[in-house]
Amino acid sequence: MKVIIAGSGAMGATYGSMLKKAGNEVIFLDGWQENIDTINKNGVRFINLGNEENLKIKAHKPIEYKEIPELIIVFTKSMQLRNMLEDIKHLIGENTKVLCLLNGLGHIETLKEYIKEKNIFMGVTVMTASMKGAGVFEVTNYGKTEIQNIVKESENEAKKIVDVINNTGLTTVYSDDIMYSIWRKACLNGTMNSTCALLETNIYGLGKIPNLKEFLRKIIEEFSMVAKFENVNIDVDDMTELVFSFTTEAFSGVHHYPSMYQDLIKNNRFTEIDYLNGYVAKKAKELGIKAEYNELIALLIHGKEQILEVK
Amino acid sequence: MKVIIAGSGAMGATYGSMLKKAGNEVIFLDGWQENIDTINKNGVRFINLGNEENLKIKAHKPIEYKEIPELIIVFTKSMQLRNMLEDIKHLIGENTKVLCLLNGLGHIETLKEYIKEKNIFMGVTVMTASMKGAGVFEVTNYGKTEIQNIVKESENEAKKIVDVINNTGLTTVYSDDIMYSIWRKACLNGTMNSTCALLETNIYGLGKIPNLKEFLRKIIEEFSMVAKFENVNIDVDDMTELVFSFTTEAFSGVHHYPSMYQDLIKNNRFTEIDYLNGYVAKKAKELGIKAEYNELIALLIHGKEQILEVK
Repeated sequence: MKVIIAGSGAMGATYGSMLKKAGNEVIFLDGWQENIDTINKNGVRFINLGNEENLKIKAHKPIEYKEIPELIIVFTKSMQLRNMLEDIKHLIGENTKVLCLLNGLGHIETLKEYIKEKNIFMGVTVMTASMKGAGVFEVTNYGKTEIQNIVKESENEAKKIVDVINNTGLTTVYSDDIMYSIWRKACLNGTMNSTCALLETNIYGLGKIPNLKEFLRKIIEEFSMVAKFENVNIDVDDMTELVFSFTTEAFSGVHHYPSMYQDLIKNNRFTEIDYLNGYVAKKAKELGIKAEYNELIALLIHGKEQILEVK
Repeated sequence: MKVIIAGSGAMGATYGSMLKKAGNEVIFLDGWQENIDTINKNGVRFINLGNEENLKIKAHKPIEYKEIPELIIVFTKSMQLRNMLEDIKHLIGENTKVLCLLNGLGHIETLKEYIKEKNIFMGVTVMTASMKGAGVFEVTNYGKTEIQNIVKESENEAKKIVDVINNTGLTTVYSDDIMYSIWRKACLNGTMNSTCALLETNIYGLGKIPNLKEFLRKIIEEFSMVAKFENVNIDVDDMTELVFSFTTEAFSGVHHYPSMYQDLIKNNRFTEIDYLNGYVAKKAKELGIKAEYNELIALLIHGKEQILEVK
């Protein structure tokens, strides 16, 4: 299958590398010229659970590539999605499927502006991958990917995509309720990532907040209220217990600095806050309900972006 | 007049030094042994607008001093007030006046547990002073002090205290509405100090928060709601404009790091958050109203205290 990876950062490159190894024709599209040049010159250096592999994959700027693929996997940062779709709209054919594996909320609305609903597939994936420099990617931990169509008629197409990815060795399942999975992940990110970035700490540090469970519950309650309007039912008690369990020393990743911390504090980059707490705050406002915890968290993160003069 | 300074940090020591210079008998009470010993050995080194003066003042641990004074000026950090009152209760005579110049909200309730209402006087002062080490204090800027009795019958006594302090050269006025002044200062501290500490920035950095005015207004609205129940009327528009004006480059102190930043980030000490945003949040809860901005700010500051392992 001819597959374009739109956004070949750490996650996109890992997906692309695994698809290439399984025999697919893979093209990387990326905005970073040095990454493109290095990949085209030296191939992709893919450090796969400690073993370095070298893969011949071609990389291009999105607007410069011309061949319509069967599948596009969108894997940008949330705030880059619209620009990427604008730059690849000439690559979205009548039957091109687009699988969106971005973190965060609100992407379907953007996708629908560029892609027919029957060709849109949403997914959630868990993976620990990082970019080591131009053309060098490392994956240290694989999790599960879930995928679903957004209109009933495309269920079989979704299952075909699940098979293509499963064949690479990336564990992938068809989801009956991908929107729940997306919101569930957003709840985890919107509690742990945002707060760790704001307080400049890791999950262990987050665990020191007094009345932590009550604090998590407030954030999650507001997520749950907004989710209801999108027909997603988040059980506040269960979700609070789940997030709380990650902040205890029993959780192996408790000393991990989440991605938003890495973006904001370590790398001084803009965060995905508007697609997590900021999305909940914005939607709540539109719906005439209060989501002041999420509103304030988003606002403080934006304040920190400005104070740290992120790029 | 015999005056005890209960809490001889930078502010208390400045007041005490000025009172001493004006001919009053002044005693410092403090919890820090090295400060006491240095003062008793070398006198107070008082750097007054750049000129160093040396003053013979005696210092003691509160529980060790035995002579009842005419006036006690309480000048601890907010969270130390109760302990200080407990330690000096043997010094509070039938006619001993107690002037409270602490920052923050909620102190009257504590004072009333130890002192007759007719002997309680509340004040607000503005001053830039810092402690340079044991026994060494610097004042770089003098502002105005306002003082008022809390029961009608003590108005004349309040005016006598105003005179005593005015005679030192510290500009002091009798206030017709000290509770308003206390709340006004708490609004300034509860917007600027708390947020600068939380975001690890100065007032200039605070000024970079997107929709800053809306953010300040939300905090102040909640202050105003709670203040109403204490018969204090804060005009939300005016107060928002006032605080906002301090965050613009037109304000000379815009590059200043407020005291809560100094406490939390620079010196890793506990903050006065429970007597500012935390007080508003607590009172709101008791009143059955929502104050989620202040609640969350207080909670995040407490989180940062734990993460930074303050002492």
